[in-house]
Parts: sequence; structure tokens; C-alpha cells
Amino acid sequence: MAKGLPKRSEDYSLWYNELVKKADLAENSDVRGCMVIKPYGYSIWEKMQRQLDDMFKETGHQNAYFPLFIPKSYLSKEAAHVEGFAKECAVVTHYRLKNDEDGKGVVVDPEAKLEEELIVRPTSETIIWNTYKNWIQSYRDLPVLVNQWANVVRWEMRTRLFLRTAEFLWQEGHTAHATKEEAIKETEQMINIYAEFAEDFMALPVIKGLKSENERFAGAVETYCIEGLMQDGKALQAGTSHFLGQNFAKAFDVKFASQDGKLEHVWGTSWGVSTRLMGALIMAHSDDEGLVLPPKLAPIQVVIVPIFKKDEEKNAIAEVANKLKKSLKNKHISVRFDDRDTHKPGFKFAEWELKGVPLRIAIGPRDLENGTVELARRDTKEKETVSIEGIESVIETKLNEIQESIYNNALNFRNEKTTKVDSYEEFKKVLEEKGGFVSAHWDGTPETEEKIKQETKATIRCIPLDAKEEAGKCIYSGKPSNKRVLFAKAY
Amino acid sequence: MAKGLPKRSEDYSLWYNELVKKADLAENSDVRGCMVIKPYGYSIWEKMQRQLDDMFKETGHQNAYFPLFIPKSYLSKEAAHVEGFAKECAVVTHYRLKNDEDGKGVVVDPEAKLEEELIVRPTSETIIWNTYKNWIQSYRDLPVLVNQWANVVRWEMRTRLFLRTAEFLWQEGHTAHATKEEAIKETEQMINIYAEFAEDFMALPVIKGLKSENERFAGAVETYCIEGLMQDGKALQAGTSHFLGQNFAKAFDVKFASQDGKLEHVWGTSWGVSTRLMGALIMAHSDDEGLVLPPKLAPIQVVIVPIFKKDEEKNAIAEVANKLKKSLKNKHISVRFDDRDTHKPGFKFAEWELKGVPLRIAIGPRDLENGTVELARRDTKEKETVSIEGIESVIETKLNEIQESIYNNALNFRNEKTTKVDSYEEFKKVLEEKGGFVSAHWDGTPETEEKIKQETKATIRCIPLDAKEEAGKCIYSGKPSNKRVLFAKAY
Repeated sequence: MAKGLPKRSEDYSLWYNELVKKADLAENSDVRGCMVIKPYGYSIWEKMQRQLDDMFKETGHQNAYFPLFIPKSYLSKEAAHVEGFAKECAVVTHYRLKNDEDGKGVVVDPEAKLEEELIVRPTSETIIWNTYKNWIQSYRDLPVLVNQWANVVRWEMRTRLFLRTAEFLWQEGHTAHATKEEAIKETEQMINIYAEFAEDFMALPVIKGLKSENERFAGAVETYCIEGLMQDGKALQAGTSHFLGQNFAKAFDVKFASQDGKLEHVWGTSWGVSTRLMGALIMAHSDDEGLVLPPKLAPIQVVIVPIFKKDEEKNAIAEVANKLKKSLKNKHISVRFDDRDTHKPGFKFAEWELKGVPLRIAIGPRDLENGTVELARRDTKEKETVSIEGIESVIETKLNEIQESIYNNALNFRNEKTTKVDSYEEFKKVLEEKGGFVSAHWDGTPETEEKIKQETKATIRCIPLDAKEEAGKCIYSGKPSNKRVLFAKAY
Repeated sequence: MAKGLPKRSEDYSLWYNELVKKADLAENSDVRGCMVIKPYGYSIWEKMQRQLDDMFKETGHQNAYFPLFIPKSYLSKEAAHVEGFAKECAVVTHYRLKNDEDGKGVVVDPEAKLEEELIVRPTSETIIWNTYKNWIQSYRDLPVLVNQWANVVRWEMRTRLFLRTAEFLWQEGHTAHATKEEAIKETEQMINIYAEFAEDFMALPVIKGLKSENERFAGAVETYCIEGLMQDGKALQAGTSHFLGQNFAKAFDVKFASQDGKLEHVWGTSWGVSTRLMGALIMAHSDDEGLVLPPKLAPIQVVIVPIFKKDEEKNAIAEVANKLKKSLKNKHISVRFDDRDTHKPGFKFAEWELKGVPLRIAIGPRDLENGTVELARRDTKEKETVSIEGIESVIETKLNEIQESIYNNALNFRNEKTTKVDSYEEFKKVLEEKGGFVSAHWDGTPETEEKIKQETKATIRCIPLDAKEEAGKCIYSGKPSNKRVLFAKAY
């Protein structure tokens, strides 16, 4: 199965693409830039969705659904927003096809032209704030805490499976509040939830921070983000939470009567994570043999592979395996007993390695005699023979250990790959030779950031929320700076 | 809250529209034909989704995701299919906007015209079968049992909330099989699952049957359906399951090597239910006071309303209510304690009646003294005073009773409204005066069905799967017929 998976050290980018395809996660479709998420990949996404959805609901949010289409004029109502999205959007202009003259195909019916073109949503602030106008009259209607699971389309020119696709799946939260303070609190709460999800479930350590002006969401006053580091030393933005101020409330005239009877504009936030998280999950942990999945997001946590030559062995092993499968399921551990006759154990081992199943149990005739199984960890490749008696709690413990160990590896890697520099020379050298996050002083101007980007391809990933006050000089302009920011090349 | 809800007997259609809006289920958006599904409505849809998804997975299906866009040429590959969908579809022709000359808005950039137009999926057979071509080579790759939860767009000219909207949410299963028999078995399995879901969860009795040629899915060999009856005597198609034969396999050249090494076309099915089910759920059970929800799909199953005058009463009631809430939650019963200070009990009663909460508990000072509560059923409006001691199991029993009772009411209604007729005169009279399902002989021709439709607006809802062989004469043509079919006016 893993045949032909390139080594990370030789071609990281090719390794990623091939892994996504060979592990049955996703593939390119015939529609430019749109992917097909295959069942195995989708089952990981479903686990992410379920967990995030629970976290959103625990914090008082409800799901709703808004139209796929946005009237063209709505996009224009918030100046920065239209600037950010108009250049790469799918435009619906007609609502009917008709048979062409030779009767062999269909053509667009010119008589079925829309009066106003519709944009396939690249994000839903405009259509949602236009709706909120009708939902919000009084402080009693606030806060509005709504989330939507949906597909969105951004006409990206260069696409890569999961990381950047023309259509992608995501969730977008859109909330409305009576006060600035409450909206900021919400924005921060959601970036904290994303960080908790990334660290506790994806086993991906992330830096929480603010985006610089250049990287801010089109229409936001402030963008909070979480940034993770991939194994090739490039950063990946894994989630964003935007404080929108009153920008969209003003653009769509959303006002409320406050408790003391004044009419005021509502304060807003929006926040989202997407199928891009799948890319982060894959790139953060996997190796040259295939996926390494954190147990909490693995659709199959344990696979049981029988090893036998004779039919009576097969049946005896199946009996033990099915009993084990049942007792693990009772502990809410997801198990697959791979009893396919069409493939040899070696093939199965490679396949489940490729697909990142955290624990593999092999059972052979000698195991039956001894009351043991062979237990193999996907992440460390350690194998051991353990007694089948009481194995359920051994497996529970192992799964927790793997979850923790994957996280710690990623954290150690990030720590090694985070470098403080105090000169531009050093900055360029680190980026060139080592990669990773570079912590440096910056004068706070978009111009400096832009120049550094042009010269090195590195951007400011974030101004970490926990950055300490520290007097220093901008590595590029020499102007004074009072905190370090994190630069990196990024996905 | 319920103020202004029209009576069903006076204007059923208006009653429905107002109920959908007033109960916070959905509303029309500014985008033609597209609705906003509000949080309360969406939470019912989520309960439906979760249950259906579990049923699909229990029968071996996996979820996946395919592109929103379908290249125009793909639609044309199956002749009947394009005929069915080309006339009402959203067409993407451009991928960019640019600023207009006066700088005030944005216009479509004529230079960003797509080489081939993309259709927003009205259903995904074409894009999915085009993908299956790469997934299926050998009998070992079969069956493919895939489902997708997605939005689809059909440019309907006359739309109604949930029942017929330009964009709607649905699931679409698409399976591929090695044999005709297996594909038919799958088609039947899925219509049985839909029927089970409708009856056991929606409390909606349905007739399982086959569609006549006129009503068949565009591209199917045979369409199975479930049909429910609404309170106004009109039928509603609640789900369909299509046996596609080899139509799409041939159109997209999907072949497999069989066990004896021959290359054969694959056999297919597709099946779907949509947010239309919300419309069926609302119309089947609700009354002039508002929604009546079956407990298994009610987002809130029990609401507790405190009744007090003094603050110390309030606190004492809250203590009891919170304790009760907790013990009900432990039994997986969803409870809302409505302790809002901003509204009076009468208002709350009306609001939760409107929203269809199956059981209401009211607790007042006298209840505290007596260790009782008032328990009110939404469906029958029966009230009784019950001891708070052991009330959890009383509530469990009541919820089951309500579920069953709603179903039985709907079943009795349908039985009353199903009439056997043997002449066209009688047929028209029943349709006119009584409505409902009319069971009649039909000669099996599309022409007769079409004429009856033109003259009476009734169509053949289905040829019931359990229809008995019975010699008879077509009510319209007098030609021989060997079984009765079900006619009705329909949504």
C-alpha cells in the first residue's frame, strides 16, 4: 500500500499530496480546485465536527443555516470586505440551460439571466448581518450566538488538497452583542476553544495571537488566530476569530434599543475553522510510512489482524478477536477486526500503518496458546507481547499515552524550531537554514512587513497574546519596538 | 406569541406559513427562493440528521463529500437526467468581480469567464458517477456505499418554506453494486429505512410504493417512495429511493471486472430525504395553537415554568425545578427551565405551545407545599397534578405515550381519508369533497395519468408495494387493470 510514498526529507510537498491520496483521505475532482473528500478522510472530519460542535453548544451557541447565495450588492456594503473577496468568487448569472441547436448538449439560456448576479458565499457575514437586521431590535434580543456548518467557495488559483481548495467545508460562527467588551470576550473565548481543540484533540500545539493589519480578515477590527508548525518548518493558520467592531452592523444598519432606550449599533464577531484542519493534522504528525493520527480523532483506534495458516486457526483466532472487539467497544474504543481473506497480514499491516490507526493487535496461533497478543504502536512503532487478560485497560492507557506523546513530539519540535533573532542577517539565515518560527522585533508598520515578505517570503504569523513587553529594535528598520512577533513562511 | 396564527380550517396554507415563521423554524431570505433555517428549526433538523445518519451507518454506509459544482457537459451525459434538471438550475459563468467605473460597486469581470459553465448541483449523480469511474475496477471494489449530507439548488419558480425552496439541505446516498439483484435490494432497504424513520421518529405513517413513469426520478429505472398525508388531505412525498439500473454506469463508463473476469457495467442506486421532511413534520401533527412535535424529535422535550409572586417563592421553586431538570437530564430527557424574569407564565405557556414542546411542567407555591407539579400534554392539552416523587418515570412513560398517540392520530386520519372508488365520477367527488388518498384502478399508461392530472390536479402518488392483485377497470379509460394505485393532490 505505502509503495511509492515519497520520503518527507526528499520532497515534503509530494509526500503530503501522495499521502492524502494513498491514505484515502481526499482526491482532486474534475472540477477545477474542488476536491472529493473520501469516506476515510470524511470520517476524521466528522470526528472533528462532532467535538467542535459540542464545544460550541456548551458555550451557548446554536446552529442555523443561511443561503448559499449572496446578492452581489451585499458584498459591496462593507468596503474592506468586498475588496478582500470580490477577486476570487464564483458568480451565478443564469438560472436555466436549454438544448443547443444540434440537440447534442445544453447551453446557457440567454433569456434566463438574473437581474442581479449572485455570489456563491466565500464567507457569510453579509447575508447573515442582513438577516440579523430583522432579528435584533432590543437588548433583549442580544446576544445572538449562531454557528453554521457549510460549504464556501473562494476561487483560488493555486489549490492543494485540504490546504487551499476552491470549495471547502467549514463552520462559521456569527455573533451579535450589546457591548464592545462582550464581543471581544466572545472573540477571545472562541480562539481559546480552537486552541483547546487543536491541542487536546489534534495533538497540535498552537500559538494564540493577533494578526497584523496585513493579515487581518477583510472587514475585521482585530483578528485572533492560532498558528501551528508543520514538520517542514512552515507555519499553518489553523483557526481565526474576528472582532468585527460595528463594521457589519453599520454596513447593514443593525441597531438595538439599549436598556436605557438609546438606539445603538450592534457589536459583532465571526470565527471559523475549515477542512484545512485536516491538512494540519496530516502534516503535523505523519511519517514516511503514512498517517499518524491522534487517538481522539482516529476513526479506527485499534485494528486487529489475524495471522493464521490453517482454517481451524482462523476460526479460533476470530473467536478471540470478536470477543476482544466487543469488550473494547463497550469501553467506547473503536475497533476494526480485519478478517479479509483477500489480503495477507503484511499487506494489512502496511495499509493500517498508512491509514494511521494508533494501535495494532496481531493474533497468531502461538498467541492463542499463550493467551497473548502482539500490540504495536503506530507512532513509535514499538511492539510488545501482552496478556489478553485485562488488555482493555492496557489499551486505554496506551491510547492516552499515544495522544500525549504525539502532542509532546510536536511541542518539542516547535520549541526546537522557534528561534529568537535580533538582526535581519540572522533572521534570513534562520529562515533559510532552519525554518520554523522566528521571534523578532518589528516596527509595527505594514510597509516593513510587506518588504520582509517580498525579500524572504516570511510573514508575521501573529503577535502572540502572551508576548512580553520588551524594548528592542525592528530587525528591518531599526525603529523601536516593544514586543517580539512571530515570523514564518506559511501555508 | 400565537397571536395572529390563522386557523387551519380557515386558511391551511397561511396557517402553515405563519406557523413556520412564528415558531422560529425558518424564514424567507432576501435571496429569491432561499430560506434561512433559524436555530429552533435547525435543531429539529439536526435531530433528524443524527438519527438518519445512525441508521445509514448501521447499514454499512459511510459519508463522503463531492463538489458543489458540476461541469455543464456532465449533466448532458444521461439523457433523461439533463431533461429533468437543466430547466431549473443555477449556472456559474464567471469567477471574479471588479470595481465598476464610478467605484461605487462591483460588476462581473467579463475577462473572468469560465471556459465551461458550472452548474450548482441539483443532485449529484453525475459528478459522483464520474468519480466512481476511478474508484471501481474490480468486483473487490464493490459495493460502494456512500452518503453525502449537502445543500442542493433547483431553481423552482414557486417556493414555500421547507416544502419547495431553491436551495435545500438533504442527504443523498449513491451506491454501486456488482449485480442488479443487490442494487434492487439496496433500493428497497433504503426506502424501508426511510419508512421506519418517518413512522418511528416523525410519527408519520407512510405508504411505501413505486412511482409511475411520469413521477419517476430523471435517470432512474424505478423510483420507490414514501408518501404521507397532511391534515388538509394533500399527500406529501417524504423520501425517494431510486434503482438506477446501469444508466449512470453507462453514461460515465463505470465498469468492473467480475469474479469470472468479464468487464461489466456497475448497477446503481440513489436515495434522499431533505429539509422537506420539516414541512411534513409540521403539517402532519400541528394545530391552531402551534407546533405539535413528536417527543423523539423535539429539541426540548419538557419545559418547566415557575409560577410565583414573591421572591422567596421564586427561589424555592427554582431549587425544585433545577433538581428535577438534573434528574431528567440523567435520563437523557432534554429539559428547559424557563426562568426568564421578562415574561409572565401565560406568555411562556403560549410560547412553548407554539413551539410544540411535548410536556409542560408548571410549579407554583401550592405545588411546593403538596410536593406536586402540574403536568400538561401539548398534544391532547390534558393537565393533571402529579406527585414530584418518582415523576421521572411518569414523564418517560408520558413521552412514549405522546409519541404513540401522535402516530395513531395521524394513522386514523389517513385511514379515514383513504377511499376506494370505482368510477371517475366518484373519484372526482371524493377529491373535491373529502381529499386524501383515492385508491383506484388505472390502466398503467402515462397518458391516462396526465389527463387525470389535468382534469383534477391529482397525480398517482404511488403504486403501493403491498397492493393486492385485483382485477378491475381503469376509472378513466375503462381498460383492464390488475391493481389499485393511490391518487391524491400533493405538495
